[in-house]
Amino acid sequence: MKVVKFGGSSLANGEQFKKVIAIVTAQPERQAVITSAPGKRFSDDIKVTDLLITYAEQFLNYLDTKKIQEKIFDRYQEIAQTFELPTEQLTWLKKELQQLQERTYPSAEYLLAAFKAHGEYFNARLLTLILNHLKIKARFIDPREVGLLVSSDSNDATVLPVTYENLARLDYTDEKLIFPGFFGVTKEGEIATFSRGGSDITGAIVARGLNAELYENFTDVDAIYATDPRLVQDPYAVTKMTYREMRELSYAGFSVFHDEAIVPAIEGRVKINVKNTNHPERPGTMIIPYQEFTPITPITGISSAKHFSALYLHKFLLNKETGFTLKILNILYKYGISYEHMPSGIDDLTIIFDNSQLTEAKRKAVSRDIRAVIQPDELRWIDDYALIMVVGEGMINRIGIMKDVILAISDHNINIHMINQGSSEVSIMLGTKSADADKAVKYIYEAFFEQK
Amino acid sequence: MKVVKFGGSSLANGEQFKKVIAIVTAQPERQAVITSAPGKRFSDDIKVTDLLITYAEQFLNYLDTKKIQEKIFDRYQEIAQTFELPTEQLTWLKKELQQLQERTYPSAEYLLAAFKAHGEYFNARLLTLILNHLKIKARFIDPREVGLLVSSDSNDATVLPVTYENLARLDYTDEKLIFPGFFGVTKEGEIATFSRGGSDITGAIVARGLNAELYENFTDVDAIYATDPRLVQDPYAVTKMTYREMRELSYAGFSVFHDEAIVPAIEGRVKINVKNTNHPERPGTMIIPYQEFTPITPITGISSAKHFSALYLHKFLLNKETGFTLKILNILYKYGISYEHMPSGIDDLTIIFDNSQLTEAKRKAVSRDIRAVIQPDELRWIDDYALIMVVGEGMINRIGIMKDVILAISDHNINIHMINQGSSEVSIMLGTKSADADKAVKYIYEAFFEQK
Repeated sequence: MKVVKFGGSSLANGEQFKKVIAIVTAQPERQAVITSAPGKRFSDDIKVTDLLITYAEQFLNYLDTKKIQEKIFDRYQEIAQTFELPTEQLTWLKKELQQLQERTYPSAEYLLAAFKAHGEYFNARLLTLILNHLKIKARFIDPREVGLLVSSDSNDATVLPVTYENLARLDYTDEKLIFPGFFGVTKEGEIATFSRGGSDITGAIVARGLNAELYENFTDVDAIYATDPRLVQDPYAVTKMTYREMRELSYAGFSVFHDEAIVPAIEGRVKINVKNTNHPERPGTMIIPYQEFTPITPITGISSAKHFSALYLHKFLLNKETGFTLKILNILYKYGISYEHMPSGIDDLTIIFDNSQLTEAKRKAVSRDIRAVIQPDELRWIDDYALIMVVGEGMINRIGIMKDVILAISDHNINIHMINQGSSEVSIMLGTKSADADKAVKYIYEAFFEQK
Repeated sequence: MKVVKFGGSSLANGEQFKKVIAIVTAQPERQAVITSAPGKRFSDDIKVTDLLITYAEQFLNYLDTKKIQEKIFDRYQEIAQTFELPTEQLTWLKKELQQLQERTYPSAEYLLAAFKAHGEYFNARLLTLILNHLKIKARFIDPREVGLLVSSDSNDATVLPVTYENLARLDYTDEKLIFPGFFGVTKEGEIATFSRGGSDITGAIVARGLNAELYENFTDVDAIYATDPRLVQDPYAVTKMTYREMRELSYAGFSVFHDEAIVPAIEGRVKINVKNTNHPERPGTMIIPYQEFTPITPITGISSAKHFSALYLHKFLLNKETGFTLKILNILYKYGISYEHMPSGIDDLTIIFDNSQLTEAKRKAVSRDIRAVIQPDELRWIDDYALIMVVGEGMINRIGIMKDVILAISDHNINIHMINQGSSEVSIMLGTKSADADKAVKYIYEAFFEQK
């Protein structure tokens, strides 16, 4: 049994649905299908999820929602028409779209979650109808009925472990099982959505729960590339990578999917195959456990992200003070701030933050508290901080890799804040000025993938 | 006014005393003199401080102390005889040596501190007598009388700030002021010694207290070398280095003096000149504030120390857990353990400890608690951990320095646990297997000091 997940662009219109159906029916093992909401059909198009958000907002602001409802309905109707599905078969959709605003919700947040989730919900039901219309055995699986239970965080839910037991009990023969992605149900019976990579998470949960042999993640790229195609022309397509390579690369910006989205699949040891809906014959990228991986190249990929800041502290005799870091962490904890890394020198400490953890007010509060408690000789924020990850299971001769990384960037006047090697067995981390990050990635890529 | 401190080997016998007197009298500015206890005269010799410890132990064990007292007295008498000091001028010394065991002490620890301190005390008084005998104006300064006040930690005291006010009030004209090193007096009036680098600390305290223009630290080496002379033949003698270079190099094993010993001098912005008692005409090494320093070479020195261990932790999705490090630090804090560094990867964390912070029992307790609280996927101790510091104020093109460091070691099959660059502005830190540390230092030294 394989779990097959399709992204929004793969389900944006009837033509894309045809490709999806061809993929799903090509193999009987492709039995569980996860749908996203219809994505953009062209670059200026609006995703159905965004239309649903607009719908929710208009409703909450007592505006007329007739037009937006029509707009949403039209998206699904357009798909249905491609398959000549009789119009009356969509009556339920129109009705449920209207009913969304007639139900009661515990809060505006839960209302928003329920509205958003219906993009996937409608698409899964529609796909089921179309498959049945095409005489393909298919069954819609409602997350509420199957017991895809999630935490009570309306728009940022996490899966509850009981879900896997519930999924394992799912009864089926040879029909396709069509799951809507992106949402689950709380213990209180409310719809709650995942935060990021919504449908990818559902796919990973279902893959684990049904004990799938493979999780095929269909998107609109041929493969995961060794680096960002916006930085390097035609970068090397990675055929195989390990879970932890994926995770380390995702950390600094690899965006095929969010690394946390695939966690349930990793936990279930389900291999993941990233493939292109438009070219399903291409092998794509396999993401596998490292036990099954034989590295061919020393480096698998290079990624970078610019959404970091750093706080530099200097205090004479700093490292002799017991509890010094503890005091700082308690301050961060007090303001609910997570840090990313904390490299230290003898009398120096740098704390690297994801900018999402900081606001101007939090920065000020942290600076003030640290000044009061620690009395540093120097306290300075570095705003434009980028992290570069050079990742590879093949990094066995690590000092040799380090040499090549350094040689690649040393002659290019790149300002390196930090080099962190050896914390991870499969990566080297560099901190640079944001302005230098793209350049650095490019030079490192060239050194490993073009000159060899 | 200059403060001049002499180490144990510089005051080991009469011949060495002659050199000391020549140095002290060569310049009228050399007015404050700090003595150590007589050190070894030959390699198998026993330092007077160690004789005094034996004396204390024998006394505490109700053994006869006559022989050990004689042995100690003989060391001073031998020096006195070189200068033909009349025997009766040492009657007080014999008497006070005996009185040491007749006094009462708050504890065995304070007894030990008082016994140990007398090595310096006798030497300072003896030097004063000899100077006076030679018609040189000199006055013994008793730390108890001048108010060199220290914390009530019998054998690990730290100076109290009031000491500087007390020293500033010291009245003198043109006589030499002879201070015994290594000890001060507690608020309760007890003798307490410093822990490490004892006489160096006294020198630094007096230099700050008397607002000296220079603190001359006389020892038995010509200079501070760019690296350990046991690893490299005739290493480059450093003529100038900054306080922080000294501190970063000392951190990993530079042993001319303990870095914390010079803190009072640094706080008072007194320059320090390390010189050789046997070759006082040689310039030695000047340690100065970085504001007054113009680097000539990119690297000032390379040091290494092997007294470290590391705890490696791996946990999937580690960096997403708020408070993760906080939990670990609270465990360390509970057992009174300071850590040195904490480099982190994405799902990995390494905590580096000075072995002095660990016992087998503490290791076990920490491992147990971390397993219980954090539930890491992997927890592993790395025992033979060495840190190498590559230090230089001239490290402006840091990526270039990094390149040279890596090139120096990359072809030598050296196992590098960790590279930490950028935390300090003046150093690069490497973590290696202990067995590889000496080799690595040698190759880095050669790259910077021999090929250029």
